[in-house]
Amino acid sequence: MSADEEAVRDLVEGWAAAVHRGDMAGVLARHDPGIVMYDVPPPEDGVRGIAAYERTWPGFFRWQENAVFEIVELDVVAGGDVAFAYALLRCATPEELGADPTRRLRLTIGLRKQADGWTVVHEHHSFTSRD
Amino acid sequence: MSADEEAVRDLVEGWAAAVHRGDMAGVLARHDPGIVMYDVPPPEDGVRGIAAYERTWPGFFRWQENAVFEIVELDVVAGGDVAFAYALLRCATPEELGADPTRRLRLTIGLRKQADGWTVVHEHHSFTSRD
Repeated sequence: MSADEEAVRDLVEGWAAAVHRGDMAGVLARHDPGIVMYDVPPPEDGVRGIAAYERTWPGFFRWQENAVFEIVELDVVAGGDVAFAYALLRCATPEELGADPTRRLRLTIGLRKQADGWTVVHEHHSFTSRD
Repeated sequence: MSADEEAVRDLVEGWAAAVHRGDMAGVLARHDPGIVMYDVPPPEDGVRGIAAYERTWPGFFRWQENAVFEIVELDVVAGGDVAFAYALLRCATPEELGADPTRRLRLTIGLRKQADGWTVVHEHHSFTSRD
């Protein structure tokens, strides 16, 4: 694994751990001011900018005190200056997991290497549509 | 815009146009044998490999003869060897568009530059969840 791949992998794993413990500073630590997130719920055209991104988390942290948020599989493709990562996660309450153990949150993350290191500029979170 | 950004933008726009006209060769032209796609419907853990990717399209092409598949907004972040793109699309029948004109398909694409040029190794397609 290249040093860049390893750095991006560490970043994504650190971010997911911060999400799981409800650590806002950890969640925001490596995100760009101009982040564009395609989140699970609306808005349709994405959550734009770090302030809007931050506002999406408190409600999720509360829900998530009784839920799992855990990376099952993570792939990283890193160049010298741009990288992306895609991952499958368990993201569910124990009841939901019991009813549907194969359900996965799908996550794609886009990053740029900046002066102070790798930075997240894009996130795409989704579940499959079953209707 | 850098030459790499322009090449990736052209690739994504060409792919979307091929999808819209149901041109399988055009859809597959710049895709890696190991493509991993997180598609709108299951499987939960993604469509893996170019043969499985190809099999997802005929049903969509049929549906799409009476629908729009149109990029509304496209952002590209390209380095020298890795790139990603994220886009919002109108992807709906005229009836669906009439009922819900702001509905968007969200698309993130991950690419590597290989010996013969930029190649798609990851796609993530989704709609927001509203339930």
